[in-house]
Amino acid sequence: MAIIECVPNVSEGRRPEVVDALVDAVRRTPGVRLLDYSSDASHNRSVITMAGDAAGLRNAVLALFEAALPRLDLRSHTGEHPRIGAVDVVPFVPIEGAGMADCVALARETAAEVAERFEVPVYLYEEAATRPSRTNLEDIRRGQFEGLTAKMADPEWTPDFGPSHPHPSAGASVIGARMPLIAYNINLATDRLDVAKKIAAAVRYSSGGFRYVKAMGVTLADRGIVQVSINVTNYEKTPLFRVFEAVRREAARYGVSVLESEIVGLVPAAALVHTAEHFLQLTSFTPDQILEHKLRNA
Amino acid sequence: MAIIECVPNVSEGRRPEVVDALVDAVRRTPGVRLLDYSSDASHNRSVITMAGDAAGLRNAVLALFEAALPRLDLRSHTGEHPRIGAVDVVPFVPIEGAGMADCVALARETAAEVAERFEVPVYLYEEAATRPSRTNLEDIRRGQFEGLTAKMADPEWTPDFGPSHPHPSAGASVIGARMPLIAYNINLATDRLDVAKKIAAAVRYSSGGFRYVKAMGVTLADRGIVQVSINVTNYEKTPLFRVFEAVRREAARYGVSVLESEIVGLVPAAALVHTAEHFLQLTSFTPDQILEHKLRNA
Repeated sequence: MAIIECVPNVSEGRRPEVVDALVDAVRRTPGVRLLDYSSDASHNRSVITMAGDAAGLRNAVLALFEAALPRLDLRSHTGEHPRIGAVDVVPFVPIEGAGMADCVALARETAAEVAERFEVPVYLYEEAATRPSRTNLEDIRRGQFEGLTAKMADPEWTPDFGPSHPHPSAGASVIGARMPLIAYNINLATDRLDVAKKIAAAVRYSSGGFRYVKAMGVTLADRGIVQVSINVTNYEKTPLFRVFEAVRREAARYGVSVLESEIVGLVPAAALVHTAEHFLQLTSFTPDQILEHKLRNA
Repeated sequence: MAIIECVPNVSEGRRPEVVDALVDAVRRTPGVRLLDYSSDASHNRSVITMAGDAAGLRNAVLALFEAALPRLDLRSHTGEHPRIGAVDVVPFVPIEGAGMADCVALARETAAEVAERFEVPVYLYEEAATRPSRTNLEDIRRGQFEGLTAKMADPEWTPDFGPSHPHPSAGASVIGARMPLIAYNINLATDRLDVAKKIAAAVRYSSGGFRYVKAMGVTLADRGIVQVSINVTNYEKTPLFRVFEAVRREAARYGVSVLESEIVGLVPAAALVHTAEHFLQLTSFTPDQILEHKLRNA
């Protein structure tokens, strides 16, 4: 059976009873499994992780809008994290037996239904984007909820579905399809923040590095070390091992060693298998050789 | 649900209709999935790979004995591979949700039932062995079917279950529990067989190397290179990455590079995950962080 992941970000992270109501809407939807959820009070934002088939996920997202709209009002929302809507961002992520094309189709279908049923304007983003200027979430969200009426008056920002003005309380939503994101940090055996920042600049896309890498250098004050904090947005095209090796070599150039690395949250098994293949110089290896894989497909 | 693997080796690899009958006995057993089987004519031997729960596997092994006994006669059996019985060796292997203790219990229970129902003497081996001298399959099988009557007259070789003399046509069987075995070859960018042999000697247990490694150096004549051909018998205690790194360093000492490595057949996912953890210097990583793992357990 095809499995797709969906990770809605909603603009509520302070009222537990409201977060519970939103999570319950997902939990009650047949064909969907709630995997995780977490709230951040300073961001005033929650992230819900679920998985299921296309029909189940579409229903769960609609149920989430239905639960969110009467409870959230962006006109009185404050928080550190940028946002333009109540159900701010909804990415669909291909996991097993489903490809990116399936996720793009699901994003479009869900976006159309959200716009029709709730009169919330929707932008399609990332792999589902209808034009290059809408690929990046940051570009769509620039100006935030407060700037949305003015932004949407510009024909360049006519939404992909729904009215050309914000929903009064729920703003607009961004729905799309993307690869699984891997949050990957590499800790350096030094307290020199300048080294972490230089390495981050060397490996990240925005300053000339790997296409699917976002990175910044930060200090871990309690440990007296620095960290290159990384997001890998497409591990098939920019694999973990390549990022690790590049960071290691850049660090060596400053006489610094890699202390350790860490994966924050979830990682697709394939990202680790590719890493093992690389370092063991494995030849002609196929996923069918993984015992558990074979067992599940038997 | 607990999943255990079972890999019976039977002394028939030349008559396809007999192999089919044996495989069918497994295939028809509820609670068991047939994963693979292959026959070798020169060895006159077949290997059947199946997986399931304890009850299903016990029934499948009994069905296999029932199908094999009227069809196989060791008195007229020839083949290059050492053997003492019709159903020669039956290892149970822990895969998921079942530990070694479960496999040892299953081996004992199955052995007792085989001895009682078929009057075939059974030796317990590896993790199920009742004394250290019976840990290694090679020691139990030394003398082969032809030497079995004399061997079993020695009190040291009284079987763990069943009569103290061989079954007339089916000999004896060896049943036990072991870790998954990984067939792992490392190809060197040289045609110097002496280098492959020296490296094999350096890493294998029998000559002072890693405890769970068997290895030999061989020539791949058609490719003009040599190979260190390895069996890792416990990848948790002697991990793949450690064997790979040791071979790489030993090769460098002779000015030789590793060309590539290959896994033959199946490998547990954990062996690859451990490899990725090692080379990425991952800290505090848990299997729960693997997306597919999380999905299955949700």
